[in-house]
Amino acid sequence: MKIALDAMGGDFGPPHNIAGAKLALADNHHIEKLFLVGDEALLKAEVDAQGLSDRRVEIVHASQVVTMHDPATAAVRGKKDSSITVAADLVKRGESEAVVSAGHTGAAVAATTVKFRLLPGVERAGIASPIPNDHGICNLIDAGANPEAKPIHLLQYAIMGSVYARHVQGVPKPRVGLMSVGEEDSKGTEFTREVFALLRESNLNFKGNIEGHDLFESEIHVVVCDGFVGNVILKSCEATAKAMMKWLKRELMAKPVRKFGAMLAKGGFAAVKDRISADTYGGSPLLGVNGICIIGHGSSSPLAIKNAILAASEAIRHGVNPHIQDEIAKFDLAHA
Amino acid sequence: MKIALDAMGGDFGPPHNIAGAKLALADNHHIEKLFLVGDEALLKAEVDAQGLSDRRVEIVHASQVVTMHDPATAAVRGKKDSSITVAADLVKRGESEAVVSAGHTGAAVAATTVKFRLLPGVERAGIASPIPNDHGICNLIDAGANPEAKPIHLLQYAIMGSVYARHVQGVPKPRVGLMSVGEEDSKGTEFTREVFALLRESNLNFKGNIEGHDLFESEIHVVVCDGFVGNVILKSCEATAKAMMKWLKRELMAKPVRKFGAMLAKGGFAAVKDRISADTYGGSPLLGVNGICIIGHGSSSPLAIKNAILAASEAIRHGVNPHIQDEIAKFDLAHA
Repeated sequence: MKIALDAMGGDFGPPHNIAGAKLALADNHHIEKLFLVGDEALLKAEVDAQGLSDRRVEIVHASQVVTMHDPATAAVRGKKDSSITVAADLVKRGESEAVVSAGHTGAAVAATTVKFRLLPGVERAGIASPIPNDHGICNLIDAGANPEAKPIHLLQYAIMGSVYARHVQGVPKPRVGLMSVGEEDSKGTEFTREVFALLRESNLNFKGNIEGHDLFESEIHVVVCDGFVGNVILKSCEATAKAMMKWLKRELMAKPVRKFGAMLAKGGFAAVKDRISADTYGGSPLLGVNGICIIGHGSSSPLAIKNAILAASEAIRHGVNPHIQDEIAKFDLAHA
Repeated sequence: MKIALDAMGGDFGPPHNIAGAKLALADNHHIEKLFLVGDEALLKAEVDAQGLSDRRVEIVHASQVVTMHDPATAAVRGKKDSSITVAADLVKRGESEAVVSAGHTGAAVAATTVKFRLLPGVERAGIASPIPNDHGICNLIDAGANPEAKPIHLLQYAIMGSVYARHVQGVPKPRVGLMSVGEEDSKGTEFTREVFALLRESNLNFKGNIEGHDLFESEIHVVVCDGFVGNVILKSCEATAKAMMKWLKRELMAKPVRKFGAMLAKGGFAAVKDRISADTYGGSPLLGVNGICIIGHGSSSPLAIKNAILAASEAIRHGVNPHIQDEIAKFDLAHA
């Protein structure tokens, strides 16, 4: 397997990316080649500093970086020699099988959509973000690739998310939900009611409208929404978890007896932190592009980078794209 | 003060409502009259069972209840003798100054919008939901009254939310944020960019786009979004907090030493639970209607009902509606 890592991406840049690469290489022997894409001098220095010496590593120079202040389109217009664009180009030229980036999400979406193109029949790519759930993993799609979605895009997200859950996560009949306000069919907006009708008519395992609590409690494998709502949900959930941990810490440190109790119980806190951490899941696939792109969290730790690289390796191994293409074609045929 | 409680509302119906009424009456001597609206026989029995004997209480019969399966419009069409409609009517006739309901949110919005009408110049009412924040209270408006909002509605929410924060919560210059994806001005959708332009041109203390983490961490007093997004945010935050507490409990109970530690630290858990609980805030005002309506959480405990009644009493005391009307008129005048 050959994977290209945007080694400049994420809030912590090369240090976390190189450390993550090292962890992934140590863990996965299917990786034949790991391209580290970015400023050559900087990456060489970091690779040396971290003592990463593995003949599977190859540094590929890119002179630019898309920063958080750039528009997403910079990846394909102003900054054509940016790390994400060069990484996507490696896939386009067949030198790599996947790209992994914890950088500017919009730029990763733009670069891979332009370089890989969309799979035949797919109208928009969507980010499938894995949420830890009482019954396994709930994939929220779209988590932010396409904030101005049309109903047909959400139907396609449901198809792509179901294929992903089936082929990569091994769920035989993925249960699909539509994020809305209120569980009755009639609840929601004109937009969600249109999506509801499309999903009901499809041959997907559609379970109707869902609400926030279903993300964590219900046996649901794919939840569709537009990219604005999906991104807001993800960030709100993350923010709530972070605020709670902070408040809990403050309260537990407020009195000696609590402090002592918290020390005894610390394994429990660590287990929950682990469970909810983006580190544990690592990367979200961008579904719908004709290639493999795994998007990491901006604040990715080395462990999160490692897991994003491993997610890319899983995606390569399971080859979901031909299945997505099939299912989209089947649907189009049935509705032609 | 005279307050009408939809005593049938909420997932737990009369028992929680009557218990909450009892707590509020014990706590607040400004209440001269508390109408308990609903099935007379049922309410009488519950009042007796709970030993509520207070000459300020008056049961007002309503033969119907809007259930969660009814459309919001049932309150003003099919079920005109429902508890929420009869409670709103008491305000309309001047017998009560406010209505409080933990029932069907859409029905409370519909009943009060039709019975009270909107304040002059206001195009849509919005629910201002209080979120506990590191710097005080962040009011999220609209939390679900109007899922299909137009940009002008969000501008009006910002105006109304600012008046509420200033007059009821005592914040001299409320800081206003727009919920979006990404903090740069250009981020978001066509819709949020239109709202952004309106807010920037206004004389509000507008701080730009905000994201999930700002709800808890930033000094921001009013956050505007459409009712679909607001409702999804609230429910996602609640669900995350609930899931975390559940997972934490499970992990802490998994080993004897953790269990013992958690017992010692339990005051800390209780403090955080208190902080994030809807019980502590109790009620969200519906801003923009020509009257006072406080909306409670469907799963309101007696404490939450009590706090919703006290929120109504605060709203009566501060009389924000004339101020909202003034600010809306000022804005209309400036842009005529």
